[in-house]
Amino acid sequence: MEELQYQEGRTEINHIGKEALVNLLTEPFKKRNKTTTSTIGDDAAIIGTGRLRRVVSTQTMVEGIHFDMMYTPLKHLGYKAVAVALSNIAAMNATARQVLVSIAVSNRYSVEALQELYQGIYLCCDRYDVDLIGGETTLCPAGMTITTTAIGEVETEKITYRNGAQTHDLIFVSGDLGSAYSGLLVLEREKVTYMANPNFQPDLASFDYVLERFLKPEPRFDIIKMLADKGVVPTSMIDISTGLAGEALHLCKSSGCGCEIYEDKLPIDYQTTRVCSEMSQNMLPTSCALNGGGDYELLFTIKQSDYDKLKDLSEIHVVGHITAPGSAAVMVTPQNTTIELRAQAFSHAE
Amino acid sequence: MEELQYQEGRTEINHIGKEALVNLLTEPFKKRNKTTTSTIGDDAAIIGTGRLRRVVSTQTMVEGIHFDMMYTPLKHLGYKAVAVALSNIAAMNATARQVLVSIAVSNRYSVEALQELYQGIYLCCDRYDVDLIGGETTLCPAGMTITTTAIGEVETEKITYRNGAQTHDLIFVSGDLGSAYSGLLVLEREKVTYMANPNFQPDLASFDYVLERFLKPEPRFDIIKMLADKGVVPTSMIDISTGLAGEALHLCKSSGCGCEIYEDKLPIDYQTTRVCSEMSQNMLPTSCALNGGGDYELLFTIKQSDYDKLKDLSEIHVVGHITAPGSAAVMVTPQNTTIELRAQAFSHAE
Repeated sequence: MEELQYQEGRTEINHIGKEALVNLLTEPFKKRNKTTTSTIGDDAAIIGTGRLRRVVSTQTMVEGIHFDMMYTPLKHLGYKAVAVALSNIAAMNATARQVLVSIAVSNRYSVEALQELYQGIYLCCDRYDVDLIGGETTLCPAGMTITTTAIGEVETEKITYRNGAQTHDLIFVSGDLGSAYSGLLVLEREKVTYMANPNFQPDLASFDYVLERFLKPEPRFDIIKMLADKGVVPTSMIDISTGLAGEALHLCKSSGCGCEIYEDKLPIDYQTTRVCSEMSQNMLPTSCALNGGGDYELLFTIKQSDYDKLKDLSEIHVVGHITAPGSAAVMVTPQNTTIELRAQAFSHAE
Repeated sequence: MEELQYQEGRTEINHIGKEALVNLLTEPFKKRNKTTTSTIGDDAAIIGTGRLRRVVSTQTMVEGIHFDMMYTPLKHLGYKAVAVALSNIAAMNATARQVLVSIAVSNRYSVEALQELYQGIYLCCDRYDVDLIGGETTLCPAGMTITTTAIGEVETEKITYRNGAQTHDLIFVSGDLGSAYSGLLVLEREKVTYMANPNFQPDLASFDYVLERFLKPEPRFDIIKMLADKGVVPTSMIDISTGLAGEALHLCKSSGCGCEIYEDKLPIDYQTTRVCSEMSQNMLPTSCALNGGGDYELLFTIKQSDYDKLKDLSEIHVVGHITAPGSAAVMVTPQNTTIELRAQAFSHAE
């Protein structure tokens, strides 16, 4: 009987990238069942055999890593725990139907606190017409961990994987980028001020948009519906949880292609720009968009021939195009400089 | 900005039973989608619309609550995390097909430790022919939390809920009861000895059966297959995660009936009896069976007319029968005394 027998020859978890870790751990697993259509390596797995397939994905949020109870209202937290799981369903071009929510909480939380959390879960389920069909609530020694499994459905011909992008396809993103991370920057700044002086009353009203973007993201099922209404099936899609750079790299790697993203095409809200200008460490709005994460917008590619069907929609924006296999994933600046994209997600959105 | 605004009017989580808590939290949620066949309140939810339905359930295991790293080999832990989730699928009379495993771990664990854990996950998936289709690995400030979502499938006419038991139905259990808890008792005893004297080498060989029962439980798909081979669909079923008493009460409450369970019919292994006799606090084998938990055997009811089909099977045992609506759930002792069943699960199996 020895505690922690695995002390020798150890590799620290944070010395290996998340993707490499998942690949290492799941490499031995091979598909066995004919009802498993697609497995690990996309936003969600696809199961079933008929024309209508089920889409399944799971997402974990940990106190002290993904959220800070100092500035996260429980109702928002419950909403977000469901919203981010549903976002993975949207990224497969599917419709969400069910969720299961498992919560491990310490006795620091009361029954009333859990009720607030569940109010948020309820609001998100209500908004996206999703059934809560299961889950678990269990005590844990410290903090809170929430794992949400989301289930959706999609017709086989509409399933959108990460690996379908082709050379010359146009790259779109929905909404705006970097605002969730700016919201986090504001909250972190106010927290520091508050810790120094607890009588301090923060003025958060003028940051309402970016705060809501961070605290209460929305899965973009409105975009999925819009694409269906216009008769467009993207060639590839992914949701932007860790920032545009990382997600564009995922998409390019899966599709075996490169991309060019134009810096001046990035949709950035004026509040994001304002927050960046106020930050002492001189944060660039482009950095927030590329690496901030937490926006849960959709990044997708379409055939050029579909462009006319989408060009008048205000909620989506062309930001670049797919380049040939073997080429790099780059951002082109207004000065026509080319910068290779790198994934450097901040931990809150990992 | 206030930390923990919910300090006032607080009800402690452990002052309200787990069932009452789940009911309180999930009461506002109503079924919305026609693809949701059945929702919270059984071992698993049922989704889909055709003859073949999907069965979904989720299970969370927390370090320091459900497992102790002092005596839990990581490979066993990974195996168990999948096995207990699959057990819920078996309890619906279904076949398991897929799992998603989400793990939040502190940096106390190395990549090598996670690989050991995943070896166990692999072994269980391999044994039960299940695909690992997703999940997440994320850092957390302390300990480890594993949430497994299991998905199975079942023909509509074979779905077995908790609520179908009828007066005079016979009550069966599979395998033996109380052995997992005896295994835990042995491990806890050796831990105490080891803490007092780290040079102490425990002799665990003579407890191999009960230790394996606790550390590496098996979902009883062999019983599901046996029932199918004999052409028997149970009238109700539940898996025994928290002990026979609690599960029999769940089944009776859902079915709106009572039950009589005969103490001398309880299947108890001789190692369980031996462990109980060695314990200083004079543990009764019957208590282990009723309230020990962690056995993951199946408790099910059948129509009396099906008895002949099952009576020669050695892996299942009649332990009692269902009584009329309004009557209590009781155990009858060999002295013909009647004791009302009470749920008092030990925390490891909650």
